[in-house]
Amino acid sequence: MSIDVAILGATGAVGQRFIQLLENHPWFRVAEVVASERSGGKTYAEAVNWVLTGNIPDTVAGLTVKPLDETLTLTSTLVFSALPANIAREFEGRLAADGHYICSNASAYRMESDVPILMPEVNAEHIHLIERQQSERGWKGGIITNSNCTAAPLVMALAPLRKYQPKTINVVSMQAVSGAGYPGVASLDILDNVIPYIKGEEPKLNLEPAKMLGLYTGESVAPLPMQVSASCNRVPVLDAHLVCVTAIFEENPSIAEIITAWDSFIGPDPVPSLPTAPAQPVIYTHEEDRPQPRRDRDAWNGMSTVVGRLRPNTVFGGVDFIALAHNTIRGAAGCSILNAE
Amino acid sequence: MSIDVAILGATGAVGQRFIQLLENHPWFRVAEVVASERSGGKTYAEAVNWVLTGNIPDTVAGLTVKPLDETLTLTSTLVFSALPANIAREFEGRLAADGHYICSNASAYRMESDVPILMPEVNAEHIHLIERQQSERGWKGGIITNSNCTAAPLVMALAPLRKYQPKTINVVSMQAVSGAGYPGVASLDILDNVIPYIKGEEPKLNLEPAKMLGLYTGESVAPLPMQVSASCNRVPVLDAHLVCVTAIFEENPSIAEIITAWDSFIGPDPVPSLPTAPAQPVIYTHEEDRPQPRRDRDAWNGMSTVVGRLRPNTVFGGVDFIALAHNTIRGAAGCSILNAE
Amino acid sequence: MSIDVAILGATGAVGQRFIQLLENHPWFRVAEVVASERSGGKTYAEAVNWVLTGNIPDTVAGLTVKPLDETLTLTSTLVFSALPANIAREFEGRLAADGHYICSNASAYRMESDVPILMPEVNAEHIHLIERQQSERGWKGGIITNSNCTAAPLVMALAPLRKYQPKTINVVSMQAVSGAGYPGVASLDILDNVIPYIKGEEPKLNLEPAKMLGLYTGESVAPLPMQVSASCNRVPVLDAHLVCVTAIFEENPSIAEIITAWDSFIGPDPVPSLPTAPAQPVIYTHEEDRPQPRRDRDAWNGMSTVVGRLRPNTVFGGVDFIALAHNTIRGAAGCSILNAE
Amino acid sequence: MSIDVAILGATGAVGQRFIQLLENHPWFRVAEVVASERSGGKTYAEAVNWVLTGNIPDTVAGLTVKPLDETLTLTSTLVFSALPANIAREFEGRLAADGHYICSNASAYRMESDVPILMPEVNAEHIHLIERQQSERGWKGGIITNSNCTAAPLVMALAPLRKYQPKTINVVSMQAVSGAGYPGVASLDILDNVIPYIKGEEPKLNLEPAKMLGLYTGESVAPLPMQVSASCNRVPVLDAHLVCVTAIFEENPSIAEIITAWDSFIGPDPVPSLPTAPAQPVIYTHEEDRPQPRRDRDAWNGMSTVVGRLRPNTVFGGVDFIALAHNTIRGAAGCSILNAE
Repeated sequence: MSIDVAILGATGAVGQRFIQLLENHPWFRVAEVVASERSGGKTYAEAVNWVLTGNIPDTVAGLTVKPLDETLTLTSTLVFSALPANIAREFEGRLAADGHYICSNASAYRMESDVPILMPEVNAEHIHLIERQQSERGWKGGIITNSNCTAAPLVMALAPLRKYQPKTINVVSMQAVSGAGYPGVASLDILDNVIPYIKGEEPKLNLEPAKMLGLYTGESVAPLPMQVSASCNRVPVLDAHLVCVTAIFEENPSIAEIITAWDSFIGPDPVPSLPTAPAQPVIYTHEEDRPQPRRDRDAWNGMSTVVGRLRPNTVFGGVDFIALAHNTIRGAAGCSILNAE
Repeated sequence: MSIDVAILGATGAVGQRFIQLLENHPWFRVAEVVASERSGGKTYAEAVNWVLTGNIPDTVAGLTVKPLDETLTLTSTLVFSALPANIAREFEGRLAADGHYICSNASAYRMESDVPILMPEVNAEHIHLIERQQSERGWKGGIITNSNCTAAPLVMALAPLRKYQPKTINVVSMQAVSGAGYPGVASLDILDNVIPYIKGEEPKLNLEPAKMLGLYTGESVAPLPMQVSASCNRVPVLDAHLVCVTAIFEENPSIAEIITAWDSFIGPDPVPSLPTAPAQPVIYTHEEDRPQPRRDRDAWNGMSTVVGRLRPNTVFGGVDFIALAHNTIRGAAGCSILNAE
Repeated sequence: MSIDVAILGATGAVGQRFIQLLENHPWFRVAEVVASERSGGKTYAEAVNWVLTGNIPDTVAGLTVKPLDETLTLTSTLVFSALPANIAREFEGRLAADGHYICSNASAYRMESDVPILMPEVNAEHIHLIERQQSERGWKGGIITNSNCTAAPLVMALAPLRKYQPKTINVVSMQAVSGAGYPGVASLDILDNVIPYIKGEEPKLNLEPAKMLGLYTGESVAPLPMQVSASCNRVPVLDAHLVCVTAIFEENPSIAEIITAWDSFIGPDPVPSLPTAPAQPVIYTHEEDRPQPRRDRDAWNGMSTVVGRLRPNTVFGGVDFIALAHNTIRGAAGCSILNAE
Repeated sequence: MSIDVAILGATGAVGQRFIQLLENHPWFRVAEVVASERSGGKTYAEAVNWVLTGNIPDTVAGLTVKPLDETLTLTSTLVFSALPANIAREFEGRLAADGHYICSNASAYRMESDVPILMPEVNAEHIHLIERQQSERGWKGGIITNSNCTAAPLVMALAPLRKYQPKTINVVSMQAVSGAGYPGVASLDILDNVIPYIKGEEPKLNLEPAKMLGLYTGESVAPLPMQVSASCNRVPVLDAHLVCVTAIFEENPSIAEIITAWDSFIGPDPVPSLPTAPAQPVIYTHEEDRPQPRRDRDAWNGMSTVVGRLRPNTVFGGVDFIALAHNTIRGAAGCSILNAE
């Protein structure tokens, strides 16, 4: 099986991650790369400032970059999008109308009621929202988004605990610089420093997780009645977002029940057998000083969320824990690829 | 005025900070330096591995290090201690019994009911606990401690708000590597990483701030009835601890009332006129991405606490804010010197 | 004495450093700030993204930014320029023609034969080149440049050794990120990394030091007959450039002679008495692992060059040593201010 | 094929790297782990503070650590040693006498005339020195060492150029913190800093490469008549040593000849077919700002040396280039494993 795919925003940090992760993919083959008009016509190797470890995959280096303009047409039905939100709005919609299926990392459509924020282990059935895109918008294809990169570890950690009805969540994040794209965070801002604010990030954490954990009713998604308050910080770490969570549930699970729920969590069939799916989506570590971004971000090729330090919160009730996910893999390109699978 | 002082633990990271801060002090002169037995007899310059910016003050470089052993006697009445907790227990007690006044950065005596954790702007009257040390323990001198370095920004931020009765506090800290002393945190552990655990730190945050903010009754200190839950993290920052705080008060102050309380906060006389006292102990910044450790830690020579991002917490009620203090100055040596003044 | 000065490129990293260093200057007062057209009309506080430690000086925060366009006129005779090279070419020339004296950090005019690259301790007499600018170009004012920031530690270290006739120099630099301005080096490029190339830097090291160390003949500067080969690297350090130098001299000085030359080096009168001049321009350290960027860059407020590890080079003859200078102070704004004084 | 192996110094940084690299090795199986006496009797998982990315391999986690003392006996004939030099002297010798073959990362025996510093692509025939260990020392086994980690990239880059007779080499290194072991370099020393000195490192670079590149005469190794001068620096990078090299040859090769020599370099049979051997031992990169430690250290699983920026040195003649190798893989454990193969 070999399915041709296109990458929108192929020269940016997330676009590069798409290309890296698809290098040896058993099903998908990068056939088209799209970037800004000034990159159009160059080879990918000429157009890109490759910022990841290692080199540009040979099979992509020589592709000619298509410019993202009004004349864009693609032969690949399956499209991965790493476009900025403002541009994504227009182009993703147009391509979906024309019959393409877009797995998008952009936030542009995430909160539309007929667009899923898909995390296959968590809410695979939300994919049926695409049918509404086709019936109501008249699109021939559709758009599937993945979550904000900071929402990813929170949602993965809460999904196995839905039966205990999480209702009040406080999150303090420590986020990697790769979350800001490239060039992103200036070294003069972050070396020997923390930046205690990330524009636009905190409100997303109140909206996206509740939708992602919500119930698909056959027509729409009813968000989980859960409130999230967030404080987001940038730290001098390359990859992986760490979140310190206080979680209060309607039904108070014990520490042992929570760990059991995490350890036994697995997505619905056929998710576990997909090429990019981790064998264990949520890994609980008993070591007192883990998870750590550098040491745990590559768990199961960056697709597992590692959780640790579960303990009672002594002042609010509920529990405290920390969760870690690789922001450009599980929180971006890797999740989009799993969505496509 | 020139008062001779001794430094215990003079070669460690906090000991060096004492020496640096006292270099041009108008009242105090470092006359004696004490370190481990293997340093005894060397000059200070020979014994120390100076880790701070700049060089060893000339006036101290040539002092002969006194070994910390059972024969130790000091001529200075005033003693600054940067000893590890286990050693501090024995030596600080013995020196206090002999008539010395110890301003200590060690945790050994902090939670004793007759020992103050002094922060002059916050609880100057706690100093009278020394009288109980003398009457009940028979000491001729006494011990004054300063707080844990992470408690410092929290206590400074809450002190102006005591009238609103803080009752429930959640803290997530991002702490600098200098808080672990020298050699302390290995570079292999912290480069491109966060360590989400600091041994022994979290319980101190539930105990020390409540005592520091407590009421001195003429005989003892009644801790503030306030519960603190903490998650402590080490980040790749050299100096300054940043805390993300959720605070719930009995009497709900408005955002404006809180900022006014911070801006107008000033310690009781004669604290503001002491040489090391900052003109403004708590500085509120209106910039959305401040305070930052590197850019704000040196506010008023590292003695001011900078607070920012005050906003309602949408899920717990109360407010969220962040506070920053220089951990080895306001949170250690600088506070001890102000205590001595 | 209070002389009004203007800053060109006031919102950039070096522009900010000018403003910070001039905050309490005994002679100069920042009266005019000039930046790009889109900053024009805003207050300085609104226009700038302040990246240095601490806050914007109050006396400058409220100044209205003048836009850098063809209508620019300045009332200050003395102008400090932190413009990019391509823009500097046009504007500095025009202002000099109009009677302003420009102390410039830009490279645009450095290699013109009638423009000095001034380092007062090293080549104060080169300032007379301004007379040629006035007689030959018809300018009413003039332009004085300071050196490339990496040339600074090399020139300061070689100046006391001119009598031994340096002839062959090999330099490997480790340069701070602030040398690239703001936003400059992306954190994704430099965290946990070294970038072994800096565009345009290496050729400057073959040209500028030879000119700076050259002899002023009463009319022009004869470059020192010295060849420099350089390899320039960017390292994850905020401030200060470190250079590893192999130096071969016509007359082979001994190790002791070199150290004596460094220790006794002092600029010609009245340089040592100027407000910004360091008491000791070149400081030799005998510690085996110094100078270090973080620990030595602030020597004498960043104006001294610290030299260390002097030893014979066993394969080329001559000597090896390392030299360190603060790149945005001695290598940029601080040197320009000293030039102005 | 499955050969049992033992690891000496198994809990240190290099010991951990041995265990990580051997996890899925097709020939070797870690059967015995040896560490200090205080680790003896614990399981490996209990004894080790695992500092690498990821987790302890399951097959090793449960092994009981054998204490390194006089009673030590091993059943594995093949032994990998990550012992400190002073301890290695005694224990490696004793084990070799008893019939074990030691592939050692320690420096203790490197400069003995009958012990090879083996780099299979470069000097495979040096392995015959073991025969002298057996005939002259009466050992039943033998010792093979690998080079100092900074010598590795230099030797790999010079080996393809031996025919041009390298004679004078100047090296400035920028070395990763993992080269100092664990805990090694304190974060307080290296964050936002460079340490321009590494104890004992520079003399090794004058001795080891000349021996490694030397000619095996059938009885002993005649060192290459090549002089090396080195300046070694520690930079805030986790893994990989970068060296800036000036190389002068008896026969002046052209730039093109050098690149051809690197591109076509390959070890003697059967080295290229060994499991750990890289397909291309030396990779020349034409990008102007590469190799970089973070982006190139994992080339061919850390076993390739990446070379770049080849250009004439304008003052000494010869050429300048930079070379990069992963210090704990090619420069330590990985090379030892290839030696064993």
